[in-house]
Amino acid sequence: MGELRKYEDFQGKNRDKLLDRVAEAAELFKETKTLAFPTWLYGEPIGRLFKVEVEDAPNFGDTAYLEMDSARTAFLSIDMQVDFCGKNGYVDVMGYDLSLTAAAIKPIKNVLNAVRGTDIKVIHTREGHEPDLSDAPFNKVLRSKIIGNGVGIGDVPANGLGRLLVRGQANWDIIDELYPIPGETVVDKAGKGAFGSSTIHMILKNLGITHLVISGITTDVCVHTIMREANDFGYWCVLLKDATGATDYGNYEAAVKSIKMQGGVFGNVTDSQRFIQAVDANLKASCC
Amino acid sequence: MGELRKYEDFQGKNRDKLLDRVAEAAELFKETKTLAFPTWLYGEPIGRLFKVEVEDAPNFGDTAYLEMDSARTAFLSIDMQVDFCGKNGYVDVMGYDLSLTAAAIKPIKNVLNAVRGTDIKVIHTREGHEPDLSDAPFNKVLRSKIIGNGVGIGDVPANGLGRLLVRGQANWDIIDELYPIPGETVVDKAGKGAFGSSTIHMILKNLGITHLVISGITTDVCVHTIMREANDFGYWCVLLKDATGATDYGNYEAAVKSIKMQGGVFGNVTDSQRFIQAVDANLKASCC
Amino acid sequence: MGELRKYEDFQGKNRDKLLDRVAEAAELFKETKTLAFPTWLYGEPIGRLFKVEVEDAPNFGDTAYLEMDSARTAFLSIDMQVDFCGKNGYVDVMGYDLSLTAAAIKPIKNVLNAVRGTDIKVIHTREGHEPDLSDAPFNKVLRSKIIGNGVGIGDVPANGLGRLLVRGQANWDIIDELYPIPGETVVDKAGKGAFGSSTIHMILKNLGITHLVISGITTDVCVHTIMREANDFGYWCVLLKDATGATDYGNYEAAVKSIKMQGGVFGNVTDSQRFIQAVDANLKASCC
Amino acid sequence: MGELRKYEDFQGKNRDKLLDRVAEAAELFKETKTLAFPTWLYGEPIGRLFKVEVEDAPNFGDTAYLEMDSARTAFLSIDMQVDFCGKNGYVDVMGYDLSLTAAAIKPIKNVLNAVRGTDIKVIHTREGHEPDLSDAPFNKVLRSKIIGNGVGIGDVPANGLGRLLVRGQANWDIIDELYPIPGETVVDKAGKGAFGSSTIHMILKNLGITHLVISGITTDVCVHTIMREANDFGYWCVLLKDATGATDYGNYEAAVKSIKMQGGVFGNVTDSQRFIQAVDANLKASCC
Repeated sequence: MGELRKYEDFQGKNRDKLLDRVAEAAELFKETKTLAFPTWLYGEPIGRLFKVEVEDAPNFGDTAYLEMDSARTAFLSIDMQVDFCGKNGYVDVMGYDLSLTAAAIKPIKNVLNAVRGTDIKVIHTREGHEPDLSDAPFNKVLRSKIIGNGVGIGDVPANGLGRLLVRGQANWDIIDELYPIPGETVVDKAGKGAFGSSTIHMILKNLGITHLVISGITTDVCVHTIMREANDFGYWCVLLKDATGATDYGNYEAAVKSIKMQGGVFGNVTDSQRFIQAVDANLKASCC
Repeated sequence: MGELRKYEDFQGKNRDKLLDRVAEAAELFKETKTLAFPTWLYGEPIGRLFKVEVEDAPNFGDTAYLEMDSARTAFLSIDMQVDFCGKNGYVDVMGYDLSLTAAAIKPIKNVLNAVRGTDIKVIHTREGHEPDLSDAPFNKVLRSKIIGNGVGIGDVPANGLGRLLVRGQANWDIIDELYPIPGETVVDKAGKGAFGSSTIHMILKNLGITHLVISGITTDVCVHTIMREANDFGYWCVLLKDATGATDYGNYEAAVKSIKMQGGVFGNVTDSQRFIQAVDANLKASCC
Repeated sequence: MGELRKYEDFQGKNRDKLLDRVAEAAELFKETKTLAFPTWLYGEPIGRLFKVEVEDAPNFGDTAYLEMDSARTAFLSIDMQVDFCGKNGYVDVMGYDLSLTAAAIKPIKNVLNAVRGTDIKVIHTREGHEPDLSDAPFNKVLRSKIIGNGVGIGDVPANGLGRLLVRGQANWDIIDELYPIPGETVVDKAGKGAFGSSTIHMILKNLGITHLVISGITTDVCVHTIMREANDFGYWCVLLKDATGATDYGNYEAAVKSIKMQGGVFGNVTDSQRFIQAVDANLKASCC
Repeated sequence: MGELRKYEDFQGKNRDKLLDRVAEAAELFKETKTLAFPTWLYGEPIGRLFKVEVEDAPNFGDTAYLEMDSARTAFLSIDMQVDFCGKNGYVDVMGYDLSLTAAAIKPIKNVLNAVRGTDIKVIHTREGHEPDLSDAPFNKVLRSKIIGNGVGIGDVPANGLGRLLVRGQANWDIIDELYPIPGETVVDKAGKGAFGSSTIHMILKNLGITHLVISGITTDVCVHTIMREANDFGYWCVLLKDATGATDYGNYEAAVKSIKMQGGVFGNVTDSQRFIQAVDANLKASCC
């Protein structure tokens, strides 16, 4: 009975209230092509509202806009570590072409230049394991050892800077070009994702974040996993497609396309130029 | 000092112990091409050890074997709901070709036929929201409303069986062909993933699961998200590539390929025939 | 080096910024005895700011005030189910004096009367397990069976309304006096806590909650566990000490006292009268 | 339909199977007063089975035994940091009597002496925040600042060893007497609890842990929170009541008592002597 009493009965009120908000926002979208910042939910902006053009939304071929509050937006630079894009790091040892992941460096640098000095928050993530590998699943270490021909997570490769994917090692740290500056935040995580095993829930809450502008490597692995998790918890996500890269170009392309399915099943996609343009036009003049 | 005293100093012992286990398992892999069930970690098998052939592991073109304990293996059928593969369900309303997701039905049915009667556990998942949509993020509902031309999550489509993706509605439930039978487990989840917002940690622990054989829809969305999460927490995952489908064939193909990168970055890939063959050859004769 | 470069170096800026905010808020507290709603973090209020008097804060014997935004405040009624305060429910079968937990009913009813009609959100929780007990740990069920003299979780006690702590059973549901009305939200959870295994992260985020006014049963078990989790994630919590009860009066008293240690280690404590007074004085006149 | 078809119908099989296991274990408990290690769930022991006497179980005044597999048991030493039991650490600055928390040191040392050299795993936890306080909720820092008379989390107290509760500071680290030795594991956490915001899920899984023997400080705060979380996820927990301490003796006593309610609502309680006795009698002779 509990179950029955509940269903459809008293819950209609909340559902209808939400669906009214949704209908209203969908109507506004028709007119403005904008996923507007919902002040009914988050309150008035703390920083400045601005829009970024996103592609293939809601349908492939369409252009739309995502509106954010600068003070509640975080620019996320995921795993730009030597291990994923530098010489003798993890990805290099695994035998992949570094140019694919390194391609993200310049666009990310450009975005950092644009957002530094505004009230957009900058968050960097690093994948890595405790020096004793206590947080590294056996199968993860084993598979890396097999594919690395005897050199996997926790091992030091020939000419390497240190143990692969181990915290505190030079190869594990963020590359010099994109190294955090004072005022930026770093999230350390042991997995591809972060929400189930790091302090990222707290960090995003402490910073008051509602929107995530995502970059980093690799597109189909860590970037996609974090974007999926954040999207599941209701964060508005947008990927900068040129500020990311994968170990395989086809996987990169499909990862980008997959986001756009179902009207944006994991969020939206744009590129660094459009985001920088939006930042420059709206936040640079008078900000902070 | 704490930090310094810790690093490299006393943690070497644990690391070396794990790396020894890994080296041993990698050596065994060289000889046998098998990712053996690690009894040092899980103990002696509770059911029966058996192997399934997996493809493109560790490198593309290679064939390997994943060994599991039948009693600690779960066959996962993800989101085989009317909403994702049936007429007038969510995916149909979104305008996608149902044949792509429905293609998974027959292979899953075949696997269910094979594992039912063995001690492999069967777990079904369902994506859906509370009738009041309390657990549905605003942006998720809004994006579905826009792409569905006014009919999104929580709405009843023309000729629909009920409110889209809402728990308790006929369209939200598992399709008749694959409906759970007594002894099987159902996990309800509100997101694409499950580990951060459902009881799946408990359920897998209560069942004693170490290995997950994964099927369901859609490949690049819910299937991949759950596989990523499970892999991050150390579960051994293997996808049955013909027992899954996406709303776009290219996305399906890339999702399968992406798993195989880095020697199996999210686990392994095989197909329903090879898995059924392994079950039939090893578990059917004398089991349970 | 990564580790070293990070520490104390570039992170000082964020730390100093936060500590400045904290120093400012502490200064304000000295003057006003108020833990003010931090608009720098959450933005301007969406509803109306109001204060509730809290006791023994920061030190025992002191009185202070907690300020909240009505629209971002949730009143939490925890586990007011037949199983925890009704005849032949779980707690009754375990042999405890129902009057201790039932004492919370009237104060909660009074608070519900006060907040209904305002923009404060109302959230009810229910502890319970799937009918197949898939989410019930073996040791939990076993211990209940032993202490219940053969009648534990999942069993039907003599003269019981259904299986103890099982979803869908009459004894599992919320008692009639406090049953949710349209517009209120219900969170189902399998454990004492909720944040690691339910959709509560999403629900609080979807409602935009920053402050939790907590009531329910039992004080030292589910109430305290949820308060601890919410506090860890940064929610501002305040317990209504007369709107809660435990199976042992000493445990109840200590649970209340424990919250007040370290200046409010899990939040603050007040009672239903003071909260109702604050609601009536501030929100009733013109609201919603 | 979906919901209806599910309830009571096909789920009875799993429920009955579990309840049969439970009835069998409860019957065994009647005869042996032992919560036996469930081999049907975990498999044969990897190490050696041994029993520890626990008190007030199932009822106050009763004595029972908890059986564990040494190789799947972890001894947990929670937050034995300078900040919680040393001079000029956090608890000292907050104004509490250090002798209450320091009382746990000697019993923990005794247990460490007993278990070192066996295959019981040792895990230490540390509470602390990133140097930039990114993972420290504003209200937590603020409350510490107010109660500390201007010296809170992130500040350096007079004659202090460093910033309070900040990772990498001498006061944050584990006290010398109980410092980890090679082969032991350290879990860093930002909250009172750990399961929602650290890698503890992975760490316990990587070590194959089923049973937790718990010590540390403070009893009613971090020790209880972690015990509650672990218990919710199905770990078997037992507290060593003399190897723990709180900032208030009454809170300590109630925290211990609260565990024993409902036949062991959060696990069991014993003391260091009984645990050491069990270790010495069973694991020392021939082990490892």
